[in-house]
Amino acid sequence: MDGSKVAVTFQPQGKHVRVPKGTTIREASARAGIVLDYPCGGQGTCGKCRVRVVENVLPPHEKERSALRPHELDAGLRLACQSAIQESTVIEIPETSLLASTYKILADAQDENIIVTDPPVHKRYIELTKPSLEDTAPDLDRVRRAYGRFDADLDMLRSLPRRLRETNFAGTAVVSDGQLIDFEPGNTERECFAAAFDIGTTTLVGSLIDLTSGAERATTSRMNPQTSHGDDVLSRILHARDDQDGLAHLHDAVVNAVNEMIGELVTQAGTRLERVYEVTFAGNTTMQHMLLSISPNALGEVPFVSAMGPAVEAAASQFGVRIHPRGRGYVFPVIGGFVGGDTIAGMLATGLANYNTPTLFIDIGTNGEIVLINEGKLLAASCAAGPAFEGARIGHGMRAAVGAIEEVRLNDRIDYATIGDAKPVGICGSALIDLAAELLRTGIVMSQGMLLTPDLLPSDIPEDIRRRIRPNEAGGEFVLVDAHETQTGAPIVLTQRDIRELQLATGAIRAGIAILLRNGGVAPEALDRVLVAGAFGNYIRCENAQRMGLLPSQVDRARIQFVGNTSLTGARLVATSLRARELAEDLRRRTQHIDLACDPNFQMEFAEAMFFPEVV
Amino acid sequence: MDGSKVAVTFQPQGKHVRVPKGTTIREASARAGIVLDYPCGGQGTCGKCRVRVVENVLPPHEKERSALRPHELDAGLRLACQSAIQESTVIEIPETSLLASTYKILADAQDENIIVTDPPVHKRYIELTKPSLEDTAPDLDRVRRAYGRFDADLDMLRSLPRRLRETNFAGTAVVSDGQLIDFEPGNTERECFAAAFDIGTTTLVGSLIDLTSGAERATTSRMNPQTSHGDDVLSRILHARDDQDGLAHLHDAVVNAVNEMIGELVTQAGTRLERVYEVTFAGNTTMQHMLLSISPNALGEVPFVSAMGPAVEAAASQFGVRIHPRGRGYVFPVIGGFVGGDTIAGMLATGLANYNTPTLFIDIGTNGEIVLINEGKLLAASCAAGPAFEGARIGHGMRAAVGAIEEVRLNDRIDYATIGDAKPVGICGSALIDLAAELLRTGIVMSQGMLLTPDLLPSDIPEDIRRRIRPNEAGGEFVLVDAHETQTGAPIVLTQRDIRELQLATGAIRAGIAILLRNGGVAPEALDRVLVAGAFGNYIRCENAQRMGLLPSQVDRARIQFVGNTSLTGARLVATSLRARELAEDLRRRTQHIDLACDPNFQMEFAEAMFFPEVV
Repeated sequence: MDGSKVAVTFQPQGKHVRVPKGTTIREASARAGIVLDYPCGGQGTCGKCRVRVVENVLPPHEKERSALRPHELDAGLRLACQSAIQESTVIEIPETSLLASTYKILADAQDENIIVTDPPVHKRYIELTKPSLEDTAPDLDRVRRAYGRFDADLDMLRSLPRRLRETNFAGTAVVSDGQLIDFEPGNTERECFAAAFDIGTTTLVGSLIDLTSGAERATTSRMNPQTSHGDDVLSRILHARDDQDGLAHLHDAVVNAVNEMIGELVTQAGTRLERVYEVTFAGNTTMQHMLLSISPNALGEVPFVSAMGPAVEAAASQFGVRIHPRGRGYVFPVIGGFVGGDTIAGMLATGLANYNTPTLFIDIGTNGEIVLINEGKLLAASCAAGPAFEGARIGHGMRAAVGAIEEVRLNDRIDYATIGDAKPVGICGSALIDLAAELLRTGIVMSQGMLLTPDLLPSDIPEDIRRRIRPNEAGGEFVLVDAHETQTGAPIVLTQRDIRELQLATGAIRAGIAILLRNGGVAPEALDRVLVAGAFGNYIRCENAQRMGLLPSQVDRARIQFVGNTSLTGARLVATSLRARELAEDLRRRTQHIDLACDPNFQMEFAEAMFFPEVV
Repeated sequence: MDGSKVAVTFQPQGKHVRVPKGTTIREASARAGIVLDYPCGGQGTCGKCRVRVVENVLPPHEKERSALRPHELDAGLRLACQSAIQESTVIEIPETSLLASTYKILADAQDENIIVTDPPVHKRYIELTKPSLEDTAPDLDRVRRAYGRFDADLDMLRSLPRRLRETNFAGTAVVSDGQLIDFEPGNTERECFAAAFDIGTTTLVGSLIDLTSGAERATTSRMNPQTSHGDDVLSRILHARDDQDGLAHLHDAVVNAVNEMIGELVTQAGTRLERVYEVTFAGNTTMQHMLLSISPNALGEVPFVSAMGPAVEAAASQFGVRIHPRGRGYVFPVIGGFVGGDTIAGMLATGLANYNTPTLFIDIGTNGEIVLINEGKLLAASCAAGPAFEGARIGHGMRAAVGAIEEVRLNDRIDYATIGDAKPVGICGSALIDLAAELLRTGIVMSQGMLLTPDLLPSDIPEDIRRRIRPNEAGGEFVLVDAHETQTGAPIVLTQRDIRELQLATGAIRAGIAILLRNGGVAPEALDRVLVAGAFGNYIRCENAQRMGLLPSQVDRARIQFVGNTSLTGARLVATSLRARELAEDLRRRTQHIDLACDPNFQMEFAEAMFFPEVV
């Protein structure tokens, strides 16, 4: 059998595998334990999984021809998701093709420490009177007498007699949600943890909270590995619907990642899994369905119906999450359609319901969520911004990893900054906004999104800028970094098509804001405050986001506030407070879902919002 | 391998098996699918598993020599639990050795029909508005809107989207304990059942209740198959403790029987398993532990501690009982020690707490339970009566099966009646009481329990009675039926040792009553009423039970009331009423457990109670 196999060596990892002829590079790299990034789900369209085939290069496939440039193809670059291996070979994996190896994720909540007032888990060391002829009370009653009221399920009841006798009737009772879940030997009152997670379409962030103090004891983050099945929620919903094991794949992917992250959290904090009694999750509707292994099929077609509504509270083990064996999981309630738990978490974290002037909450992620409060009334909408701001669908777009250009300024020349001060590799979201805004400001891009040809440019454009505009049949491109300055030796450009992608992403959010404001009877200039949430939010320049139309230009910059990862903050709140869970349910009931797809004005708003604002 | 096997044929079943040499008859019969009765747990002491070896009879073992008489041994009788098979053989199985083949069990509750006011399960047919662009409410909220408030666990949430769409958003919601457990296609409101069980040490009784009307739709009963591991609770507790798989054996035995009985109930009622949403159980403390697979070890040693206290409510599947896949099980609360759920069920069924004159409740089973109410105060005790009244440990004792003498009168001659009017095989409990009472009345047995020799007998004893007394070294015996009248051709006798066993069983209950009355400050003559429960109770003659001391002689017969199987009635009540469950919990809290073993007077009371009352 081995005769039909070929040898593959991956560099710089130095991994070596033997695979059958015809195996894709994707499959071979997976077998070597190397996880590449497939934002498009392995369709061969995004070009993110590029690798260099060093030996025995085969001719490129058609999809590779469109995703890669001729000089890249000549240099041996191929797409791991498309190319099969026919001969023994050596393959180089660029850092930028690896999944989240150096992903820069904002894992900050607004407040590092939360005051724990009414946690869902209580621990108390108790010494019981031992049974005697004078005191033959049942085991369960004996513990209750010392601890106070609780219930115990059948499993606990089965193990209680042994536990009590092993500990000689002294130990720490652990009560979660009114249920006795453990009786631990010795006094372990000080070791009581909860984990809180933000389950984003693109990013997972976890936090470990000490329930005795509220202190955050560890944080971790990584890419959502579901990204390999598509970079937006819709492609994942379709995968869940159309592939027999699709939902299982997606569920397993996120749950395995969560379990690994919990492992990292407890290691960082110097504790162990069995001391984590509670885990909470905030995510958008689709992510929460997949986390819980609930079919999202009805979210994949008109009228986009969510299966879940109220918060789900269940044994964490019931959806595969490993904490204490009897630990509980909490997943945020869903308002409706795509307006999910992360939105409620954001409202909770910002105290949005308490704002008594017209206030807008915007969470910019792969899905954009928008909430308006006006005169105590809450309206919420979700818009499919797509992953453009996360670098996908943009020719040289990339995530905020080392080598990503994160800031751009146009003066006489171009100034830019990269993450890690590395030689540039691509452009991440905040720099895309900068660049779009600067191109609009200088008049190089017109409000309808057209990149002007050099002959049509305003006369005051400096020469170093002017030379960067290269017309071609596809509408031209703007050279942000010349070939000799980049890691790859190829220039980094923004194409006319990239600008269209940015228009789509921005337009979706702008249209959503416009419709929400109209439904709430609030004129844009009447907005008193805008709260911008999301990992991405903290890195963008407000004036540029306003100039390109992502944030309403009518609001004074001083009234725009970046509030960080409110999804995680909300998850931390419900991990530490039962009252917060009541508030979450209250927010769910109070918030009216505005389904943009259903709004008769949406298509027109969207078409209008596709234009960038006129230069002011 | 087959060379070392021998052939065994069982008659009259005509079953044929091949087993390795040295296999016990017990094992061989089990392989042939023939279930024999082993009240002593296969210790070779009770003699109930007697079989006749027709061919290749081997010499008897020592235990067989003491359990069987010489003429029985000569006729080829052997104990299935002791004898091994060395040669191919034919074995006859007497009807009386079979487990419960014709067991006569009282499966009557006091009232056949119960009015259902607040059942734990509700069904309602609902037609939902279908999702539309104007109405995108989550699936769960959609059902709630139509049905009203309920919760749904994660499993239900996972299946709900599919169910709603399969039924085109119209079907019957099933809500149990506030949880949505099913959404059935069509209108199934009329098919809503609960099963109720009395889990006795010796007998299992089940009843199927139509929750739409309260009507009992089917009943069934059988031996508790745990009997093969011992006929009293202590031997089963020791089996659970000392055998690694002991608890699993005992649990599986009773749960398998319950599942078969549920199968019989739904067949009788013409419905199916999926329409039974609730199952309730009342049993003594030990039976309930084993049913739930909770270790009863602490019940096996001083100070006899129960693991469970409050009622256990759990998914029936969690302890292996098969009804609707999400159906719930309820197991009665336990007061303490051996005073268990059947006692609370009895109090509930009789409304004992409402009696405002001193009243005694006695449930005579393998364990005797006694409750006294006086001035609103409830005291309860349990006494190990043992299985003598169920025929075990009595030489010619047997259960109330066909051929059992169930009634005896001594006049000039002996009058007796058998169950099924068959030729007599042995004596069952009610006849044992009759016989003991008659022997006491006529002076043949003295109050200290001695069977007089013919020369010491009162002169007025008729000749036909007098001739039945046969002195021997073991204290003599009384011939109830001559050899030529019996099925076996051997006389049916009551031996001096049998009388001692009856003294022990009666004494335990009498002593328990005496101590309970003393603790409650009630003189026996102050008792206003005695309620006698238990399958056995309905068949005994009150005056005889009083004469032999089983029931207090100071109470007028008109004030002694037989109340039937109150354990089952209680189980039916909690199957149909949540209020009944609250009352059960209230009774648990209000009732004081009197631990007889702990009472300083018990040993003396017991010694005194060993004497039969003086003839009055």
